[in-house]
Amino acid sequence: MSGAREALLRVAPGGVLGILGGGQLGRMLALAAAELGIESHIYCPDPASPAFQIAKQITCAPYEDEAALTAFAAGVDAITYEFENVPARTAAILSAAKPVQPTVHALETTADRLTEKTFIRSLGIGTAEFRAVDSHADLAGAVGVLGRPSVLKTRRFGYDGKGQTIIRPGHDLSESLDRMGGQPAILEAFVPFVAEVSVIAVRSDNGSVRTYDLVENEHHDHILDQSIVPARLSALVEDQALSIAATIIAALDYVGVLAVEMFVTSDHTVLVNEIAPRVHNSGHWTQDACLVSQFENHVRAVCGWPLGSTERHSDAVMTNLIGDDINAWRALAAEPNAALHLYGKLEARTGRKMGHVTRISPRSR
Amino acid sequence: MSGAREALLRVAPGGVLGILGGGQLGRMLALAAAELGIESHIYCPDPASPAFQIAKQITCAPYEDEAALTAFAAGVDAITYEFENVPARTAAILSAAKPVQPTVHALETTADRLTEKTFIRSLGIGTAEFRAVDSHADLAGAVGVLGRPSVLKTRRFGYDGKGQTIIRPGHDLSESLDRMGGQPAILEAFVPFVAEVSVIAVRSDNGSVRTYDLVENEHHDHILDQSIVPARLSALVEDQALSIAATIIAALDYVGVLAVEMFVTSDHTVLVNEIAPRVHNSGHWTQDACLVSQFENHVRAVCGWPLGSTERHSDAVMTNLIGDDINAWRALAAEPNAALHLYGKLEARTGRKMGHVTRISPRSR
Repeated sequence: MSGAREALLRVAPGGVLGILGGGQLGRMLALAAAELGIESHIYCPDPASPAFQIAKQITCAPYEDEAALTAFAAGVDAITYEFENVPARTAAILSAAKPVQPTVHALETTADRLTEKTFIRSLGIGTAEFRAVDSHADLAGAVGVLGRPSVLKTRRFGYDGKGQTIIRPGHDLSESLDRMGGQPAILEAFVPFVAEVSVIAVRSDNGSVRTYDLVENEHHDHILDQSIVPARLSALVEDQALSIAATIIAALDYVGVLAVEMFVTSDHTVLVNEIAPRVHNSGHWTQDACLVSQFENHVRAVCGWPLGSTERHSDAVMTNLIGDDINAWRALAAEPNAALHLYGKLEARTGRKMGHVTRISPRSR
Repeated sequence: MSGAREALLRVAPGGVLGILGGGQLGRMLALAAAELGIESHIYCPDPASPAFQIAKQITCAPYEDEAALTAFAAGVDAITYEFENVPARTAAILSAAKPVQPTVHALETTADRLTEKTFIRSLGIGTAEFRAVDSHADLAGAVGVLGRPSVLKTRRFGYDGKGQTIIRPGHDLSESLDRMGGQPAILEAFVPFVAEVSVIAVRSDNGSVRTYDLVENEHHDHILDQSIVPARLSALVEDQALSIAATIIAALDYVGVLAVEMFVTSDHTVLVNEIAPRVHNSGHWTQDACLVSQFENHVRAVCGWPLGSTERHSDAVMTNLIGDDINAWRALAAEPNAALHLYGKLEARTGRKMGHVTRISPRSR
């Protein structure tokens, strides 16, 4: 799909892109911007931010620091972010000064699992069955309808399995709800999936949409372990998934890269699990198996450049390096068809994403 | 070829690589280092250095500033450079403090065209015929032997055709020599080549050598215009050229990436034109057509990491963007199979390398 008009140019070569968030995603966005001759200004409260190492311009301040936000916005041509939980007030201050993409509207739709799933359903796209849970009575009623096992999740701020509980036969409902700490929750029917997949899509503000090939994901302890491309699934499943992602990104009037995580059931039904309004771990393979990575395409989109190719020249398996996995860096660097990406984090804490390795092979299909 | 022992680790993940020179080559080296979790400290006298934009640690000082050099060396784990004409005193100060690769010895051998060609000949590798020219009498004698056309070059500091004069029938010899400004010179026989080629080779300090595929180069006004891979030449020529590069890099006991530029004659003879002891413009295609680029492999080598793959996954044509060529950036960015690389230079002066574009296609052979 391609739009009729040129996108509005927001950051020309030599211009400055402001990036909120200094983790590995912000870092890889800034590196991609640098390849296009675009400078990055990284804003992050953490002085040890990995992205600070590769940018000349940095602001180390809280996201609530209005003076720092205003100065940051004044020095950049456009703003984007590496994470979806941007405080509303932060987004409002920045948006008043400079173009911020993706927009606050897209963030709001996807920040709350109830709003997100309701929106997805409104597009005629399948999700797990779900019910809002604000009280013990709500939970009892929802479990009555959706059965066990089912999954109780906080509506906001969940990632990598945080804020989730599986309600199995015999589990005490009160205790499960109390673990949510009084936050608004949602109960989702358990989906007996045969595969977890994702699609990385990118959209320009002229309406052009491109999708990368379907990714098959394997998780370990709720954290992404491997992404495999091409997915070992039928063309029918891939077509469904790509079409779902393209529909969602257009319906959100979204600019930039977005990831749609989906379940595939045994009858080849594709159900959306969640939307991540940002570059995504399951798209890291695009750095090594595509001419233009998800990071560069996000930069292109938010800067108003033409989108780049999303074609895949190689097959790829991306494996995250979590915690102590990093200690194997030298053996990984010696593998013949492996590309190693390390994030410059000093301390290898348990569960912390330290880097990833992408193993490529000639394109099989 | 692979070495028996592990290379000596000089820069671990989280360590700092010092890079002398802040142009586009230093910039692309620093970006490659960042992908490996290695920080860069850029040293360059030019405050407008493109590489300064993407490094947290920079030193802007003359190459003769001993205090600045000493402080720079103290803050890094190892040192490399983007250009071959490092002043001897600079190299000596740095080498006394930290490992500097490639070594001063390799620089000295290749810095002078006479020393370089004599060295290449000593390996049994062909070059154009040549004679040292230190006087008008030398030049007259040399032209008598090598004939016309022949090429008069300064022995040191020539690049992109600077410091070269073709001596054609009728040209005044005195005037040609005077144009060299009294610098030591060399006269080289004119090689009636059918193609200009280069090989990018990399060597680890454990003796492992890898070469990228043969590159066919086309120049325009003495500046590289296009690099084409695979070269449109026979396997026999490619084998000769790769073997020559591997022989030279080993004979220099060199660590890092080195480019060997060669002529191919109509009878398929390969003659070495010159050696560039650094990452090279004719290796830029490796960023997009190989899993590990020349920049990353140079960083790996000088840091003591295992070398990365030099396999090519795609065919590639790299085109330099010189001066005003940069104005076409938006159309280039919109091409379906093109990767755009811009260097962040603010002013597009005539003859200035502003960026490059690599067009890839599925591997043909």
